[in-house]
Amino acid sequence: MTLLNMSKVEASTPAHRSDQVFTLAQQYQQIRQFTEELCEPLVTEDYIIQAMPDVSPTKWHIAHVSWFFETFLLRDYDPSYKLLNETYPYLFNSYYVSAGNRWTRANRGLLSRPTVADVYQYRRYVDEHMLNFLEKIDEDTAQEITPLMDIGFNHEQQHQELMLTDIKYNFSINPLYPVYRPYKTVKHGRIPTLGWVAYEAGVYHIGHHGDGFIFDNEAPRHRVFAERFQLSNRLITNGEFMEFIQDGGYEKTLLWLSMGWDAVQTNGWQAPLYWEKVDGTWYHYTLAGLRELDLDEPVTHVSYYEADAFARWAGARLPTEAEWEIAAQPLPIQGNFVDDRHYHPIPLNEPPTAFPAQMYGDVWEWTASHYSPYPGYEPAPGSIGEYNGKFMANQFVLRGGSCATMANHIRPTYRNFFPGHARWQFMGFRLAKAA
Amino acid sequence: MTLLNMSKVEASTPAHRSDQVFTLAQQYQQIRQFTEELCEPLVTEDYIIQAMPDVSPTKWHIAHVSWFFETFLLRDYDPSYKLLNETYPYLFNSYYVSAGNRWTRANRGLLSRPTVADVYQYRRYVDEHMLNFLEKIDEDTAQEITPLMDIGFNHEQQHQELMLTDIKYNFSINPLYPVYRPYKTVKHGRIPTLGWVAYEAGVYHIGHHGDGFIFDNEAPRHRVFAERFQLSNRLITNGEFMEFIQDGGYEKTLLWLSMGWDAVQTNGWQAPLYWEKVDGTWYHYTLAGLRELDLDEPVTHVSYYEADAFARWAGARLPTEAEWEIAAQPLPIQGNFVDDRHYHPIPLNEPPTAFPAQMYGDVWEWTASHYSPYPGYEPAPGSIGEYNGKFMANQFVLRGGSCATMANHIRPTYRNFFPGHARWQFMGFRLAKAA
Amino acid sequence: MTLLNMSKVEASTPAHRSDQVFTLAQQYQQIRQFTEELCEPLVTEDYIIQAMPDVSPTKWHIAHVSWFFETFLLRDYDPSYKLLNETYPYLFNSYYVSAGNRWTRANRGLLSRPTVADVYQYRRYVDEHMLNFLEKIDEDTAQEITPLMDIGFNHEQQHQELMLTDIKYNFSINPLYPVYRPYKTVKHGRIPTLGWVAYEAGVYHIGHHGDGFIFDNEAPRHRVFAERFQLSNRLITNGEFMEFIQDGGYEKTLLWLSMGWDAVQTNGWQAPLYWEKVDGTWYHYTLAGLRELDLDEPVTHVSYYEADAFARWAGARLPTEAEWEIAAQPLPIQGNFVDDRHYHPIPLNEPPTAFPAQMYGDVWEWTASHYSPYPGYEPAPGSIGEYNGKFMANQFVLRGGSCATMANHIRPTYRNFFPGHARWQFMGFRLAKAA
Amino acid sequence: MTLLNMSKVEASTPAHRSDQVFTLAQQYQQIRQFTEELCEPLVTEDYIIQAMPDVSPTKWHIAHVSWFFETFLLRDYDPSYKLLNETYPYLFNSYYVSAGNRWTRANRGLLSRPTVADVYQYRRYVDEHMLNFLEKIDEDTAQEITPLMDIGFNHEQQHQELMLTDIKYNFSINPLYPVYRPYKTVKHGRIPTLGWVAYEAGVYHIGHHGDGFIFDNEAPRHRVFAERFQLSNRLITNGEFMEFIQDGGYEKTLLWLSMGWDAVQTNGWQAPLYWEKVDGTWYHYTLAGLRELDLDEPVTHVSYYEADAFARWAGARLPTEAEWEIAAQPLPIQGNFVDDRHYHPIPLNEPPTAFPAQMYGDVWEWTASHYSPYPGYEPAPGSIGEYNGKFMANQFVLRGGSCATMANHIRPTYRNFFPGHARWQFMGFRLAKAA
Repeated sequence: MTLLNMSKVEASTPAHRSDQVFTLAQQYQQIRQFTEELCEPLVTEDYIIQAMPDVSPTKWHIAHVSWFFETFLLRDYDPSYKLLNETYPYLFNSYYVSAGNRWTRANRGLLSRPTVADVYQYRRYVDEHMLNFLEKIDEDTAQEITPLMDIGFNHEQQHQELMLTDIKYNFSINPLYPVYRPYKTVKHGRIPTLGWVAYEAGVYHIGHHGDGFIFDNEAPRHRVFAERFQLSNRLITNGEFMEFIQDGGYEKTLLWLSMGWDAVQTNGWQAPLYWEKVDGTWYHYTLAGLRELDLDEPVTHVSYYEADAFARWAGARLPTEAEWEIAAQPLPIQGNFVDDRHYHPIPLNEPPTAFPAQMYGDVWEWTASHYSPYPGYEPAPGSIGEYNGKFMANQFVLRGGSCATMANHIRPTYRNFFPGHARWQFMGFRLAKAA
Repeated sequence: MTLLNMSKVEASTPAHRSDQVFTLAQQYQQIRQFTEELCEPLVTEDYIIQAMPDVSPTKWHIAHVSWFFETFLLRDYDPSYKLLNETYPYLFNSYYVSAGNRWTRANRGLLSRPTVADVYQYRRYVDEHMLNFLEKIDEDTAQEITPLMDIGFNHEQQHQELMLTDIKYNFSINPLYPVYRPYKTVKHGRIPTLGWVAYEAGVYHIGHHGDGFIFDNEAPRHRVFAERFQLSNRLITNGEFMEFIQDGGYEKTLLWLSMGWDAVQTNGWQAPLYWEKVDGTWYHYTLAGLRELDLDEPVTHVSYYEADAFARWAGARLPTEAEWEIAAQPLPIQGNFVDDRHYHPIPLNEPPTAFPAQMYGDVWEWTASHYSPYPGYEPAPGSIGEYNGKFMANQFVLRGGSCATMANHIRPTYRNFFPGHARWQFMGFRLAKAA
Repeated sequence: MTLLNMSKVEASTPAHRSDQVFTLAQQYQQIRQFTEELCEPLVTEDYIIQAMPDVSPTKWHIAHVSWFFETFLLRDYDPSYKLLNETYPYLFNSYYVSAGNRWTRANRGLLSRPTVADVYQYRRYVDEHMLNFLEKIDEDTAQEITPLMDIGFNHEQQHQELMLTDIKYNFSINPLYPVYRPYKTVKHGRIPTLGWVAYEAGVYHIGHHGDGFIFDNEAPRHRVFAERFQLSNRLITNGEFMEFIQDGGYEKTLLWLSMGWDAVQTNGWQAPLYWEKVDGTWYHYTLAGLRELDLDEPVTHVSYYEADAFARWAGARLPTEAEWEIAAQPLPIQGNFVDDRHYHPIPLNEPPTAFPAQMYGDVWEWTASHYSPYPGYEPAPGSIGEYNGKFMANQFVLRGGSCATMANHIRPTYRNFFPGHARWQFMGFRLAKAA
Repeated sequence: MTLLNMSKVEASTPAHRSDQVFTLAQQYQQIRQFTEELCEPLVTEDYIIQAMPDVSPTKWHIAHVSWFFETFLLRDYDPSYKLLNETYPYLFNSYYVSAGNRWTRANRGLLSRPTVADVYQYRRYVDEHMLNFLEKIDEDTAQEITPLMDIGFNHEQQHQELMLTDIKYNFSINPLYPVYRPYKTVKHGRIPTLGWVAYEAGVYHIGHHGDGFIFDNEAPRHRVFAERFQLSNRLITNGEFMEFIQDGGYEKTLLWLSMGWDAVQTNGWQAPLYWEKVDGTWYHYTLAGLRELDLDEPVTHVSYYEADAFARWAGARLPTEAEWEIAAQPLPIQGNFVDDRHYHPIPLNEPPTAFPAQMYGDVWEWTASHYSPYPGYEPAPGSIGEYNGKFMANQFVLRGGSCATMANHIRPTYRNFFPGHARWQFMGFRLAKAA
């Protein structure tokens, strides 16, 4: 999660006011609409719950993304705007300290009011004011707000992904195993054997350049030196991870980082999150309900520690984020995204090429890199600057987007980040090794 | 909460089968209906939440009381009965270890499914089967099940009270201060000065005798010796408790039990639960929303420790449960019960008499007595015996019922019990002292 | 632990000043000397440690009992007295809030200084001033301080007992199993079968009367009504408790109080504290080191919950404290006390009589009574009043003294108390039942 | 803490057996002796305590370093060696999972036995066997064990540093403020103004090359690209940190990393560890007791989060570990080390030069780099490989050694690491910024 590179984006806005405003309004409507599409399978009760502190109720998500447009656009740029409810800023701020006090994160699931209907009314209210506002603004204002609108769009896309992973977690603990949307069958052949793609040592450029929206943590573009390395030509599968389990991977202390071993012991981990053994057969809970484990799918819902232990067991390591980005730079952005509405990683269905497959979509790929600022990193000024930089401690970078990410949201330079023990996102990995 | 005294109740059942069955069915419908009346002000979202581990979602309450009839009546006596859903016994058992595993109590608020509609369907299903069953049974069965039905009725009444106190707690943490039902004005004159009623030393009989339903912890009737004592002629009011606060009661360590002082420090208590000072004026959250504090109402939502500290400050003590029962025995069971639909204690509106006022209704009265078995106490056999006895450690007895109790649920021998730090029930107190 | 009944004791002091002072000085020296005798087997390191928050380092005990005489005698009555070290009152106060701030109890084991030698120097300093002071006082002062001296003596005796139980706990967790003092063999015949002694229903007097020192919680003497009851004629043995274990006592939920079952689950209890199974044989750690379990010894180091579960398993119950005191009143105070220097309960070695055996010494006997004030209870005024009353919540009464108690410290009216989960004192039990 | 680069070290061992063995024995004796010198100011009690889980009792340290030689040298290479005590390996293993079970780290302060005398006897026993063993070995064995001996030496030096910081922490919580060794006055002039030293962008070599002992995390030498940067020409002082405090640094959320702000709130941080304000004057606890704060000394005992917040406040950042190493490579290894026996950082006493001052000694310098493996990193095989790699998550790298480090222990490539919240080591920092 990150902050806009202001200068870049401003330079890239088109000259004709009406086009630009039209585009903003159109984008706004499309993105807001997709959020609501994701809610279609839910009943009122599903919007309320928060099954662990890391997840948020769907109700909160759909209010919070509206709060974002209200707070950073309407309240700052539309002098006629009035709050629908004076308590909502307190309830729907996430962590912007400079934007005022907020309701405790871990207690978001303790509020029955405002109701789901109230929250949809709030969305309508914000939408109406936003669209009126966009109709009325002049060219200069359009220029000025485009960076903020872009953040608002990307921010809502990030919450669309969280809505899916949070709903999944909330449903997963329920002994009734609710189905979010039914399984769509995917045909595929045999998964190709794991192979390696080699990259030469040298000075590479990393980080964003050129036009287009980015978060602030992707800049500035800078040079890194990479020693010669190889990347696995595809993601690790459930079948491969099963071998690790069957070889006693979860019992072999020496395979694990010290904090990873603590997590295994404390949480009793014996398999990825959502895996369940019933009468000798492995199942996993998915957004399509409890399904028998498909060994050909990329493994997902593993922590950094599990990915790292697997890599050590396999005689390899995880790639650094620089290595991943070097490999991703020449590749088209295509893969199993939320646009395809699988809501789950799918098996690889193409023969090996000279390039690594599955770099985008399916699962966020854990890298070996702690999340740190790039040389010359500058957070954006103001409240919106509290977006990325303040989380740069004790987290690992993930790359490439997942089956819950919008295709137009991801880039080769995009840096996602989570603590090493997190598992509820669609997290998987590929291997790396020295050449 | 307690267990049926079998022999007593069996002896008291009427001779004519049809009357008895008719009465059972009528009682069943009345009690079940009142549960649903209590839910009328709620929207779907309100049924789901659990704002602290001690409270349960309304959805859970209305399912659990149905589970009780399903488990102890239908499954044991109606051979044709089939479960509506195999998972419900697991989800809706409370703490009956011998009735099987159960969903963790503190996690009851994490489940969106079964939905509220599902749970009402479950109620209908159980109701239908119960009424069919009651229509078909013969006289012997009617005799046999009457004690169980009585427990079921009383059990549901207990949960009616918990529903109100749990909804109140759930609403109270919400910055929107939801109103359950609007305030009904109560007219009253000046509260009479606190006076004392004296009782002679001697051997008294305590505990239940005669016919009628009781919980097992009210038996057997036995003798106690009471030294001469006096009871205050009414409950302590908000106004009197305010004096305690203004005199620094919450800061004076020596007024407190050691565990009470710990609770004050740990929780930052400075007033009863739900009291709130806004711009120098005291308010309290009630089921009618946030209202200015009425100094004439009996104080409520205080812990045992606060009641005990107040008593010490006032140069008095709390009555023992035996003293309370001695005083209550000759009095009619009347007071501010849930039947009056105030959902809150009301000011005393009668002149002093030779007897203590407000013994029933308004607030459960903390006594100085730890909750222990009476001499010769026998828990009922079977699962239903897990009702009272196993809680006989580290709890205090409360007497007299509250504004959330049904009038026909309370008796002079009725023993309620809670840990000393509990505050979310309608708990208040009166004073006692040596003569 | 308790507070002096002032009026009683003052009335009982002898007429001749010199005798009285002589007695005070002699008692002082005897009691102070025994504290140091108990330390003889220790090396410096043993004085420092605190293996759990409930225990205190020996160093702290021997300083705290000196602080008691310094604070309540020397500082109040000897105007020439100067503190040896200004920090000691802060370090060695236990819980007397009104006597000033104090070092956190759980952190007593984190201080290397003052050293053991410093603390002995402090003892000498206090002793010297106390004896000088006692030499100089006039008759009136002697009269006035006798009650405080008596508390000081009894207080130090209580800490002598705690020193032994705390050293035992501290040693017990050490894989080297240190020996405090070697085992003294005890000869005995076959333990008599468990029998019962019956007592008639009626009004009894309970609590202290007559002369002599008591703690404030033993007064006032008052009347109770006891229904007919029976007491077991001896303590429960290790052998009997072993049957409970072998019958699956620790796995049968229905035998346990709810809080007891929680304690079993949380702590993984499967036997009394200090029991250890090595290669199929049961041992227990004692102050004489790790010894094979002697089935004839009274069982000890069980919690209230284990005693209560055993009683339920055996079809009986624990006695109330009133029942215990009724039985104890006619009996001589004799038994296995610390005066005998066994530091462990010993097998019963006498044939059954008309009276219950082992009422005194060996183990403190858990009673079914929560610890509550007697009717008319008054704590002593001033700091010293913080001794008993403030602990009257969520504790159970134990009676009769143990193998770590001084014979001249115990009485039929003596009320010890601990939370239901405590096990590190020498705690055991006998059974009761209705007649 | 790190593991030997085997190949490098083996290549560097001298040809003449007797010299090599003589050197090993001499080094052994010197290093073992310094450990004991550090203990000279301690009394027995000081060896026992553990005032927080991160620190260890001195007794444990001096036993553990002996266990290291016993386990990795004597037990593996001296067939005649017998354990002095079978329990010691269990008690004195630190975290080598592959070397067997071990006593819980947080409970090291709960053991009075083995006594301090026992532990010194154990040291003597190991020393005697080590020196006998070194006398008898042949040339091949000498070659083979030299890498292990080097680890043993460096390992003991690391524990010497920990002994000092742990004793400091243990003493610091004691209201008596014990003095470890008295203050040695240091004369110095005015501290030079903070200036900057610039470094060009380019590819640099980082990590160890050449002969000599290293830990495994310092290898392999590899290339990194550094953009142009500047380093402050000296450490930040107490005076400068005081300005940060006086400017409200601890209250300004936006200066802090999210985890840093949590730490400030949770722990109530308002100044570096050991700072204390008494009657308006700032003091800090040092190994020479409580001293008035010297504004010219380098600030120490700050967490990564405090260093990072200060840097942000100052408009700068912390250097990466690569930047630090680039700057350190040409500099001589000199500074305020434990060899000088100040046991505390001292004010800078030299005029500015073209190079940054105080790069070595005084305080470990926090870098902005999370602790991660170098490209091509290989942990050593066997138990000894559990030394560095398994800690490579959620820690930050510190560089340069401190006033508690031996001069011959430190190198430009040396990588120390601690979690961001740690403060009890001698931790300080310098600033960096883009050119």
